[in-house]
Amino acid sequence: MAMGEFDLIKRYFQQQILVDDSVQLSIGDDCALVSVPENYQLAITTDTMVENTHFLPTISPEDLAYKAVATNLSDLAAMGAQPKWVSLALTLPNVDENWISTFSQSLLHTLKQYNVTLIGGDTTKGNLSITITAQGFVEKNKGICRHKAQIGDLIYVSSTLGDSAAGLTQILLGKSAVDSDDVFLQQRHLRPTPRIELGQALIGIAHVAIDLSDGLISDLGHILERSQCSAEVELTALPLSSSILNKYDRTQAEQFALSGGEDYELCFTIPPEYKDELELRLKKLNVPCTCIGKINEKCGDFSPRFLRDGKPVNITFSSGFDHFKESK
Amino acid sequence: MAMGEFDLIKRYFQQQILVDDSVQLSIGDDCALVSVPENYQLAITTDTMVENTHFLPTISPEDLAYKAVATNLSDLAAMGAQPKWVSLALTLPNVDENWISTFSQSLLHTLKQYNVTLIGGDTTKGNLSITITAQGFVEKNKGICRHKAQIGDLIYVSSTLGDSAAGLTQILLGKSAVDSDDVFLQQRHLRPTPRIELGQALIGIAHVAIDLSDGLISDLGHILERSQCSAEVELTALPLSSSILNKYDRTQAEQFALSGGEDYELCFTIPPEYKDELELRLKKLNVPCTCIGKINEKCGDFSPRFLRDGKPVNITFSSGFDHFKESK
Repeated sequence: MAMGEFDLIKRYFQQQILVDDSVQLSIGDDCALVSVPENYQLAITTDTMVENTHFLPTISPEDLAYKAVATNLSDLAAMGAQPKWVSLALTLPNVDENWISTFSQSLLHTLKQYNVTLIGGDTTKGNLSITITAQGFVEKNKGICRHKAQIGDLIYVSSTLGDSAAGLTQILLGKSAVDSDDVFLQQRHLRPTPRIELGQALIGIAHVAIDLSDGLISDLGHILERSQCSAEVELTALPLSSSILNKYDRTQAEQFALSGGEDYELCFTIPPEYKDELELRLKKLNVPCTCIGKINEKCGDFSPRFLRDGKPVNITFSSGFDHFKESK
Repeated sequence: MAMGEFDLIKRYFQQQILVDDSVQLSIGDDCALVSVPENYQLAITTDTMVENTHFLPTISPEDLAYKAVATNLSDLAAMGAQPKWVSLALTLPNVDENWISTFSQSLLHTLKQYNVTLIGGDTTKGNLSITITAQGFVEKNKGICRHKAQIGDLIYVSSTLGDSAAGLTQILLGKSAVDSDDVFLQQRHLRPTPRIELGQALIGIAHVAIDLSDGLISDLGHILERSQCSAEVELTALPLSSSILNKYDRTQAEQFALSGGEDYELCFTIPPEYKDELELRLKKLNVPCTCIGKINEKCGDFSPRFLRDGKPVNITFSSGFDHFKESK
């Protein structure tokens, strides 16, 4: 016998033990009731993942739940916010109790890892789709936006770029992970790390930050457009993992890094005088960050310009991932 | 040429003029940044509407946008909250600019009507589906929950019940609205009114409140289960519109009222000593409320008992709307 939706929500998602005193009422009423401490603002983000658009039907419920949470927390990280609560809207084609049990366990486990409370949501019938609204605290007027890049700012990215796109390519080709490089790349696609601590460490020194969900060209482009400036990026400075370079030639690796998307690393800018302060703060974290270029005056459009060994080069491949454009 | 998703969001949903000083940053960044005033809590609710599950493919984009907003604000109303912000996750099978233009205009118009700001969201490709997360302010510890009904409380419902289910039945049968009764019933289905002012007027006198989305039996059942009590409901007291009684016999009208769902009226309880105060407060609103029964001690399960002219009767039809159960 199929379980009703109320039973579903109760049985699988109410298992968490609430230890968050910002939550006064959670799942099971018309609304959740929560509090925001004085001197804090709320950062709010919403992302949807649809089967066959954002993930393959072959993805495991564990990886899907993890990634749905991680990608939303990544948006909070990019503002320098401390994640607090998520609401989950889960649309399912049918009631597969094994699937839901595994999905919910992974979701709650991931939330617990980041001290985030599931405060409510909705379960509906339809094609598989997950919408999460995530909320976090950020000190008043300290949130890191996209529109405050200044000419002369240094542009940084965290960790390595392109791994996720390389891993997705392997998965799409049906390639099993036969060595540690394959495992690394595929895990970078399936299990991206939201850079929450890094985002918070950037408060007070970064002028802008964004998480790299659509690829560096596209996401840096958002910063440039919002900040009304341009940028130059040195291709030889792009941080590329040894795994991507073991598996792909440099040109392909650069393409993954620039336009592949879904790395969920942070791209941010700082004024040059904060370089030492940044390095000091990074020492306390386990996330290397690399300077890849600088912010320039606007010249023509807002696209970043690329250099190789200091000389201008043209980049010809696709400029970012867009679900609607992809379908043409 | 298809527009990209970023263009879509910008072009159609950024048209609103922000006049809400609780919103410091809205559409166009990784997150929105908002503030909650001191002494207030935040009420948060999420609801999804999926094509062919929650609405027919024939629904107009105007009605769909209206209803997606109204049903979420209805949850805030049931807590006594003042709606403030919504996030919109819109999944579309393709880019039909006429459709999106009409949908977004209706959505923004509806939000404006209720002084609510669209603070962000996501646009994705897939089967048509709308998830809204709505947030509102409620004075600290004043939110009206489901778990505080007391034995002896009087049970009230707002306006009339069953109209929406009657209107849906007409629409499903392909019946054109030929007279004012048909128009009334079908509009009650397509354009439910979130009882926001009523919800706020109930603060301090109502022990519990819920909005009637699944039908009185099911929704009152949620109150009874959460409050660990039972109830008796007098069937002759059910408020039925003249339109429903002009079009259906009393038995059918009662069935619509008890288990039809989607009325989005409020069901609430007050202690008898607040009867006069309730009537005083209702005079300032244009929403009649009717006492239909009272809260009793738990006896067996949490289902409400029904009386007709004071004598117990058995209700045999379905107890509420459940998307998964319906599919069996």
